[in-house]
Amino acid sequence: MAVTTRRADAQRNIAAILTAAADCLGRDPGASTSEIAKAAGVGRVTLYGHFPSRAELVDAVFVQAIATGEETLGQVDLTGDPRDALTRLIESSWHLVDQYRALLLAAQDALPPGRVQELHADPMARVERLLERGRSENVFRTDLPTSWLVSVMHNVMHGAASEIQAGRITSDQAAPYITATLLAAFTPPQSE
Amino acid sequence: MAVTTRRADAQRNIAAILTAAADCLGRDPGASTSEIAKAAGVGRVTLYGHFPSRAELVDAVFVQAIATGEETLGQVDLTGDPRDALTRLIESSWHLVDQYRALLLAAQDALPPGRVQELHADPMARVERLLERGRSENVFRTDLPTSWLVSVMHNVMHGAASEIQAGRITSDQAAPYITATLLAAFTPPQSE
Repeated sequence: MAVTTRRADAQRNIAAILTAAADCLGRDPGASTSEIAKAAGVGRVTLYGHFPSRAELVDAVFVQAIATGEETLGQVDLTGDPRDALTRLIESSWHLVDQYRALLLAAQDALPPGRVQELHADPMARVERLLERGRSENVFRTDLPTSWLVSVMHNVMHGAASEIQAGRITSDQAAPYITATLLAAFTPPQSE
Repeated sequence: MAVTTRRADAQRNIAAILTAAADCLGRDPGASTSEIAKAAGVGRVTLYGHFPSRAELVDAVFVQAIATGEETLGQVDLTGDPRDALTRLIESSWHLVDQYRALLLAAQDALPPGRVQELHADPMARVERLLERGRSENVFRTDLPTSWLVSVMHNVMHGAASEIQAGRITSDQAAPYITATLLAAFTPPQSE
Protein backbone atom coordinates (compact mmCIF):
# COMPACT_ATOMS: atom_id res chain seq x y z
CA MET A 1 0.00 0.00 0.00
CA ALA A 2 2.78 2.40 1.02
CA VAL A 3 4.73 1.38 -2.06
CA THR A 4 1.71 2.05 -4.30
CA THR A 5 1.24 5.49 -2.73
CA ARG A 6 4.93 6.32 -3.16
CA ARG A 7 4.72 5.24 -6.79
CA ALA A 8 1.62 7.38 -7.38
CA ASP A 9 3.36 10.33 -5.71
CA ALA A 10 6.41 9.85 -7.91
CA GLN A 11 4.29 9.73 -11.05
CA ARG A 12 2.44 12.88 -10.01
CA ASN A 13 5.73 14.65 -9.32
CA ILE A 14 7.23 13.59 -12.65
CA ALA A 15 4.13 14.81 -14.49
CA ALA A 16 4.19 18.13 -12.59
CA ILE A 17 7.94 18.60 -13.29
CA LEU A 18 7.53 17.86 -17.02
CA THR A 19 4.57 20.23 -17.33
CA ALA A 20 6.40 22.98 -15.43
CA ALA A 21 9.60 22.40 -17.44
CA ALA A 22 7.73 22.61 -20.76
CA ASP A 23 6.12 25.82 -19.57
CA CYS A 24 9.32 27.45 -18.17
CA LEU A 25 11.60 26.39 -21.07
CA GLY A 26 8.89 27.48 -23.52
CA ARG A 27 9.12 30.99 -22.08
CA ASP A 28 12.89 31.06 -21.41
CA PRO A 29 15.31 28.56 -23.04
CA GLY A 30 17.72 29.26 -20.17
CA ALA A 31 15.25 28.47 -17.36
CA SER A 32 17.06 26.86 -14.39
CA THR A 33 16.11 23.65 -12.58
CA SER A 34 15.40 25.78 -9.47
CA GLU A 35 12.78 27.80 -11.34
CA ILE A 36 11.30 24.62 -12.79
CA ALA A 37 11.16 22.89 -9.39
CA LYS A 38 9.46 25.96 -7.90
CA ALA A 39 6.91 26.12 -10.75
CA ALA A 40 6.22 22.39 -10.30
CA GLY A 41 5.73 22.81 -6.56
CA VAL A 42 8.45 20.27 -5.69
CA GLY A 43 11.84 20.59 -4.01
CA ARG A 44 15.09 20.53 -5.99
CA VAL A 45 16.04 17.23 -4.34
CA THR A 46 12.82 15.66 -5.65
CA LEU A 47 13.48 17.08 -9.12
CA TYR A 48 17.05 15.75 -9.17
CA GLY A 49 15.77 12.40 -7.87
CA HIS A 50 13.80 12.00 -11.09
CA PHE A 51 16.06 13.96 -13.49
CA PRO A 52 19.70 13.78 -12.32
CA SER A 53 20.77 16.65 -14.62
CA ARG A 54 19.17 19.62 -16.36
CA ALA A 55 20.08 18.00 -19.70
CA GLU A 56 18.09 14.87 -18.81
CA LEU A 57 15.07 17.01 -17.96
CA VAL A 58 15.35 19.02 -21.21
CA ASP A 59 15.68 15.74 -23.09
CA ALA A 60 12.51 14.33 -21.47
CA VAL A 61 10.53 17.51 -22.24
CA PHE A 62 11.75 17.40 -25.82
CA VAL A 63 10.78 13.73 -26.21
CA GLN A 64 7.29 14.64 -25.02
CA ALA A 65 7.04 17.61 -27.42
CA ILE A 66 8.07 15.42 -30.36
CA ALA A 67 5.43 12.83 -29.38
CA THR A 68 2.74 15.54 -29.23
CA GLY A 69 3.92 16.90 -32.58
CA GLU A 70 3.76 13.44 -34.11
CA GLU A 71 0.02 13.30 -33.37
CA THR A 72 -0.48 16.50 -35.37
CA LEU A 73 1.82 15.48 -38.24
CA GLY A 74 0.14 12.08 -38.50
CA GLN A 75 -3.04 13.88 -39.59
CA VAL A 76 -1.46 15.76 -42.51
CA ASP A 77 -2.76 14.53 -45.88
CA LEU A 78 0.33 13.27 -47.72
CA THR A 79 -1.50 11.85 -50.73
CA GLY A 80 -1.75 13.48 -54.17
CA ASP A 81 0.87 15.70 -55.84
CA PRO A 82 4.08 15.25 -53.79
CA ARG A 83 4.87 18.99 -54.08
CA ASP A 84 1.48 19.93 -52.62
CA ALA A 85 1.87 17.24 -49.95
CA LEU A 86 5.33 18.59 -49.05
CA THR A 87 3.90 22.11 -48.83
CA ARG A 88 1.24 20.89 -46.38
CA LEU A 89 3.82 18.95 -44.36
CA ILE A 90 6.15 21.97 -44.18
CA GLU A 91 3.28 24.19 -42.97
CA SER A 92 2.31 21.80 -40.18
CA SER A 93 5.93 21.07 -39.25
CA TRP A 94 6.80 24.75 -39.19
CA HIS A 95 3.82 25.48 -36.93
CA LEU A 96 5.29 22.96 -34.46
CA VAL A 97 8.87 24.25 -34.73
CA ASP A 98 7.54 27.76 -34.16
CA GLN A 99 5.40 26.70 -31.20
CA TYR A 100 8.34 24.88 -29.61
CA ARG A 101 10.95 27.44 -30.69
CA ALA A 102 12.22 28.30 -27.18
CA LEU A 103 12.32 24.62 -26.21
CA LEU A 104 14.27 23.86 -29.39
CA LEU A 105 16.86 26.48 -28.44
CA ALA A 106 17.05 25.04 -24.92
CA ALA A 107 17.61 21.56 -26.39
CA GLN A 108 20.22 22.72 -28.91
CA ASP A 109 22.05 24.40 -26.03
CA ALA A 110 21.72 21.67 -23.37
CA LEU A 111 21.86 18.40 -25.33
CA PRO A 112 24.97 16.84 -26.91
CA PRO A 113 25.58 17.49 -30.65
CA GLY A 114 23.38 15.31 -32.86
CA ARG A 115 20.84 14.54 -30.12
CA VAL A 116 18.21 17.05 -31.35
CA GLN A 117 18.33 15.47 -34.81
CA GLU A 118 18.24 11.96 -33.29
CA LEU A 119 15.05 12.85 -31.41
CA HIS A 120 13.49 13.90 -34.74
CA ALA A 121 13.73 10.33 -36.11
CA ASP A 122 9.94 9.91 -36.49
CA PRO A 123 9.14 13.23 -38.21
CA MET A 124 12.22 12.76 -40.41
CA ALA A 125 11.09 9.26 -41.42
CA ARG A 126 7.76 10.75 -42.54
CA VAL A 127 9.56 13.34 -44.69
CA GLU A 128 11.75 10.58 -46.10
CA ARG A 129 8.75 8.49 -47.20
CA LEU A 130 7.17 11.48 -48.94
CA LEU A 131 10.43 12.39 -50.68
CA GLU A 132 10.90 8.78 -51.81
CA ARG A 133 7.42 8.79 -53.35
CA GLY A 134 8.12 12.11 -55.08
CA ARG A 135 11.41 10.73 -56.41
CA SER A 136 9.71 7.63 -57.81
CA GLU A 137 7.25 9.95 -59.58
CA ASN A 138 10.11 12.11 -60.95
CA VAL A 139 8.83 15.15 -59.07
CA PHE A 140 11.80 15.37 -56.70
CA ARG A 141 15.46 15.12 -57.69
CA THR A 142 17.25 11.76 -57.51
CA ASP A 143 20.81 13.00 -58.09
CA LEU A 144 21.25 13.54 -54.32
CA PRO A 145 20.51 10.94 -51.60
CA THR A 146 17.12 11.16 -49.86
CA SER A 147 18.85 11.35 -46.46
CA TRP A 148 20.65 14.50 -47.64
CA LEU A 149 17.39 16.12 -48.77
CA VAL A 150 15.82 15.25 -45.39
CA SER A 151 18.74 16.88 -43.57
CA VAL A 152 18.43 20.00 -45.77
CA MET A 153 14.77 20.30 -44.79
CA HIS A 154 15.63 19.80 -41.11
CA ASN A 155 18.40 22.42 -41.19
CA VAL A 156 16.52 25.03 -43.23
CA MET A 157 13.50 24.69 -40.95
CA HIS A 158 15.46 24.94 -37.72
CA GLY A 159 17.56 27.74 -39.25
CA ALA A 160 14.32 29.67 -39.73
CA ALA A 161 13.78 29.50 -35.95
CA SER A 162 17.19 31.17 -35.47
CA GLU A 163 16.33 33.82 -38.07
CA ILE A 164 13.18 34.68 -36.12
CA GLN A 165 15.14 34.73 -32.86
CA ALA A 166 17.61 37.16 -34.52
CA GLY A 167 14.68 39.33 -35.66
CA ARG A 168 15.50 38.97 -39.37
CA ILE A 169 12.22 37.32 -40.39
CA THR A 170 8.76 37.09 -38.82
CA SER A 171 6.99 33.91 -37.84
CA ASP A 172 4.46 34.45 -40.67
CA GLN A 173 7.17 34.72 -43.34
CA ALA A 174 8.89 31.50 -42.33
CA ALA A 175 6.56 28.85 -43.83
CA PRO A 176 6.37 30.47 -47.31
CA TYR A 177 10.15 31.10 -47.31
CA ILE A 178 10.91 27.52 -46.28
CA THR A 179 8.48 26.12 -48.86
CA ALA A 180 9.85 28.29 -51.70
CA THR A 181 13.41 27.32 -50.78
CA LEU A 182 12.86 23.58 -50.42
CA LEU A 183 10.61 23.08 -53.46
CA ALA A 184 13.33 24.74 -55.57
CA ALA A 185 16.11 22.76 -53.88
CA PHE A 186 14.26 19.44 -54.36
CA THR A 187 13.23 19.96 -58.02
CA PRO A 188 15.12 17.73 -60.48
CA PRO A 189 17.88 19.75 -62.22
CA GLN A 190 17.17 20.86 -65.82
CA SER A 191 13.40 20.82 -65.23
CA GLU A 192 11.20 23.79 -64.31
CA MET B 1 61.08 46.06 -16.54
CA ALA B 2 59.33 43.49 -14.33
CA VAL B 3 56.01 44.69 -15.75
CA THR B 4 57.27 44.27 -19.33
CA THR B 5 58.44 40.73 -18.55
CA ARG B 6 55.11 39.85 -16.94
CA ARG B 7 53.30 41.21 -19.96
CA ALA B 8 55.51 39.19 -22.32
CA ASP B 9 54.92 36.08 -20.18
CA ALA B 10 51.18 36.66 -20.28
CA GLN B 11 51.22 37.06 -24.07
CA ARG B 12 53.27 33.88 -24.45
CA ASN B 13 50.86 32.00 -22.19
CA ILE B 14 47.79 33.26 -24.04
CA ALA B 15 49.33 32.23 -27.37
CA ALA B 16 50.26 28.79 -25.98
CA ILE B 17 46.75 28.30 -24.54
CA LEU B 18 45.04 29.31 -27.80
CA THR B 19 47.29 27.02 -29.86
CA ALA B 20 46.76 24.11 -27.46
CA ALA B 21 42.99 24.75 -27.33
CA ALA B 22 42.71 24.82 -31.14
CA ASP B 23 44.64 21.55 -31.24
CA CYS B 24 42.71 19.78 -28.44
CA LEU B 25 39.24 20.99 -29.53
CA GLY B 26 40.13 20.11 -33.12
CA ARG B 27 40.65 16.51 -32.03
CA ASP B 28 37.87 16.32 -29.42
CA PRO B 29 35.02 18.88 -29.27
CA GLY B 30 34.57 17.93 -25.60
CA ALA B 31 38.21 18.58 -24.57
CA SER B 32 38.36 19.96 -20.99
CA THR B 33 40.21 23.04 -19.80
CA SER B 34 42.46 20.74 -17.73
CA GLU B 35 43.58 18.89 -20.88
CA ILE B 36 44.09 22.20 -22.68
CA ALA B 37 46.12 23.70 -19.80
CA LYS B 38 48.28 20.56 -19.72
CA ALA B 39 48.85 20.64 -23.49
CA ALA B 40 49.74 24.34 -23.25
CA GLY B 41 52.21 23.68 -20.43
CA VAL B 42 50.48 26.08 -18.03
CA GLY B 43 48.56 25.57 -14.79
CA ARG B 44 44.76 25.73 -14.65
CA VAL B 45 44.94 28.89 -12.54
CA THR B 46 46.94 30.59 -15.29
CA LEU B 47 44.43 29.42 -17.91
CA TYR B 48 41.45 30.67 -15.89
CA GLY B 49 43.31 33.92 -15.29
CA HIS B 50 43.18 34.59 -19.03
CA PHE B 51 39.95 32.76 -19.91
CA PRO B 52 37.55 32.79 -16.92
CA SER B 53 35.34 30.07 -18.44
CA ARG B 54 35.64 27.24 -20.98
CA ALA B 55 33.08 29.07 -23.14
CA GLU B 56 35.29 32.17 -23.29
CA LEU B 57 38.24 30.04 -24.38
CA VAL B 58 36.18 28.26 -27.06
CA ASP B 59 34.93 31.67 -28.23
CA ALA B 60 38.50 33.01 -28.52
CA VAL B 61 39.67 29.94 -30.48
CA PHE B 62 36.68 30.27 -32.79
CA VAL B 63 37.34 33.97 -33.39
CA GLN B 64 40.90 33.05 -34.38
CA ALA B 65 39.72 30.26 -36.72
CA ILE B 66 37.29 32.63 -38.45
CA ALA B 67 40.07 35.19 -38.90
CA THR B 68 42.35 32.54 -40.44
CA GLY B 69 39.50 31.39 -42.68
CA GLU B 70 38.87 34.96 -43.80
CA GLU B 71 42.41 35.11 -45.22
CA THR B 72 41.65 32.07 -47.39
CA LEU B 73 38.19 33.24 -48.45
CA GLY B 74 39.53 36.68 -49.36
CA GLN B 75 41.53 35.03 -52.12
CA VAL B 76 38.57 33.32 -53.83
CA ASP B 77 37.84 34.81 -57.27
CA LEU B 78 34.28 36.13 -57.00
CA THR B 79 34.20 37.78 -60.43
CA GLY B 80 32.47 36.41 -63.55
CA ASP B 81 29.32 34.26 -63.66
CA PRO B 82 27.76 34.50 -60.15
CA ARG B 83 26.87 30.78 -60.22
CA ASP B 84 30.49 29.81 -60.92
CA ALA B 85 31.68 32.30 -58.30
CA LEU B 86 29.26 30.82 -55.74
CA THR B 87 30.50 27.33 -56.59
CA ARG B 88 34.10 28.43 -55.91
CA LEU B 89 33.09 30.17 -52.68
CA ILE B 90 31.17 27.09 -51.48
CA GLU B 91 34.18 24.85 -52.20
CA SER B 92 36.57 27.06 -50.22
CA SER B 93 34.08 27.65 -47.42
CA TRP B 94 33.32 23.96 -47.15
CA HIS B 95 37.02 23.15 -46.96
CA LEU B 96 37.21 25.46 -43.92
CA VAL B 97 34.04 24.12 -42.27
CA ASP B 98 35.39 20.60 -42.77
CA GLN B 99 38.83 21.50 -41.39
CA TYR B 100 37.29 23.16 -38.32
CA ARG B 101 34.46 20.62 -37.96
CA ALA B 102 35.32 19.49 -34.41
CA LEU B 103 35.85 23.10 -33.29
CA LEU B 104 32.48 24.03 -34.81
CA LEU B 105 30.79 21.28 -32.78
CA ALA B 106 32.60 22.50 -29.64
CA ALA B 107 31.40 26.04 -30.33
CA GLN B 108 27.80 25.00 -31.05
CA ASP B 109 27.83 23.09 -27.77
CA ALA B 110 29.61 25.64 -25.56
CA LEU B 111 28.48 29.02 -26.88
CA PRO B 112 25.06 30.63 -26.39
CA PRO B 113 22.46 30.23 -29.20
CA GLY B 114 23.12 32.60 -32.11
CA ARG B 115 26.78 33.23 -31.16
CA VAL B 116 28.25 30.87 -33.82
CA GLN B 117 26.28 32.66 -36.53
CA GLU B 118 27.25 36.08 -35.06
CA LEU B 119 30.94 35.11 -35.31
CA HIS B 120 30.38 34.34 -39.01
CA ALA B 121 29.50 37.97 -39.77
CA ASP B 122 32.48 38.51 -42.14
CA PRO B 123 32.12 35.34 -44.25
CA MET B 124 28.36 35.88 -44.36
CA ALA B 125 28.81 39.48 -45.56
CA ARG B 126 30.96 38.14 -48.43
CA VAL B 127 28.21 35.67 -49.42
CA GLU B 128 25.66 38.47 -49.19
CA ARG B 129 27.63 40.69 -51.60
CA LEU B 130 27.92 37.88 -54.15
CA LEU B 131 24.24 37.01 -53.88
CA GLU B 132 23.28 40.69 -54.31
CA ARG B 133 25.35 40.86 -57.49
CA GLY B 134 23.73 37.64 -58.78
CA ARG B 135 20.30 39.04 -57.99
CA SER B 136 21.01 42.27 -59.88
CA GLU B 137 22.06 40.12 -62.87
CA ASN B 138 18.85 38.00 -62.60
CA VAL B 139 20.91 34.87 -61.92
CA PHE B 140 19.71 34.41 -58.33
CA ARG B 141 16.11 34.69 -57.13
CA THR B 142 14.79 37.99 -55.78
CA ASP B 143 11.47 36.70 -54.40
CA LEU B 144 13.16 35.89 -51.05
CA PRO B 145 15.33 38.31 -49.00
CA THR B 146 19.11 38.05 -49.43
CA SER B 147 19.53 37.57 -45.65
CA TRP B 148 17.31 34.49 -45.88
CA LEU B 149 19.39 33.01 -48.72
CA VAL B 150 22.58 33.67 -46.71
CA SER B 151 21.09 31.86 -43.70
CA VAL B 152 20.08 28.92 -45.92
CA MET B 153 23.69 28.63 -47.14
CA HIS B 154 24.99 28.84 -43.55
CA ASN B 155 22.57 26.19 -42.29
CA VAL B 156 22.98 23.77 -45.20
CA MET B 157 26.76 24.00 -44.94
CA HIS B 158 26.87 23.49 -41.18
CA GLY B 159 24.23 20.78 -41.50
CA ALA B 160 26.64 18.93 -43.81
CA ALA B 161 29.17 18.85 -40.95
CA SER B 162 26.54 17.09 -38.79
CA GLU B 163 25.77 14.65 -41.63
CA ILE B 164 29.46 13.71 -41.78
CA GLN B 165 29.60 13.40 -37.98
CA ALA B 166 26.59 11.03 -38.19
CA GLY B 167 28.35 8.99 -40.90
CA ARG B 168 25.65 9.60 -43.53
CA ILE B 169 27.87 11.39 -46.05
CA THR B 170 31.62 11.59 -46.62
CA SER B 171 33.70 14.74 -46.56
CA ASP B 172 34.25 14.43 -50.35
CA GLN B 173 30.52 14.29 -51.09
CA ALA B 174 29.70 17.40 -49.09
CA ALA B 175 30.88 20.19 -51.44
CA PRO B 176 29.10 18.84 -54.55
CA TYR B 177 25.92 18.11 -52.53
CA ILE B 178 25.93 21.60 -50.99
CA THR B 179 26.57 23.23 -54.39
CA ALA B 180 23.83 21.24 -56.16
CA THR B 181 21.38 22.06 -53.37
CA LEU B 182 22.11 25.78 -53.10
CA LEU B 183 22.33 26.54 -56.83
CA ALA B 184 18.87 24.97 -57.22
CA ALA B 185 17.52 26.76 -54.14
CA PHE B 186 18.86 30.15 -55.32
CA THR B 187 17.70 29.91 -58.96
CA PRO B 188 14.81 32.26 -59.83
CA PRO B 189 11.51 30.32 -59.91
CA GLN B 190 10.08 29.49 -63.37
CA SER B 191 13.56 29.57 -64.95
CA GLU B 192 15.84 26.58 -65.58
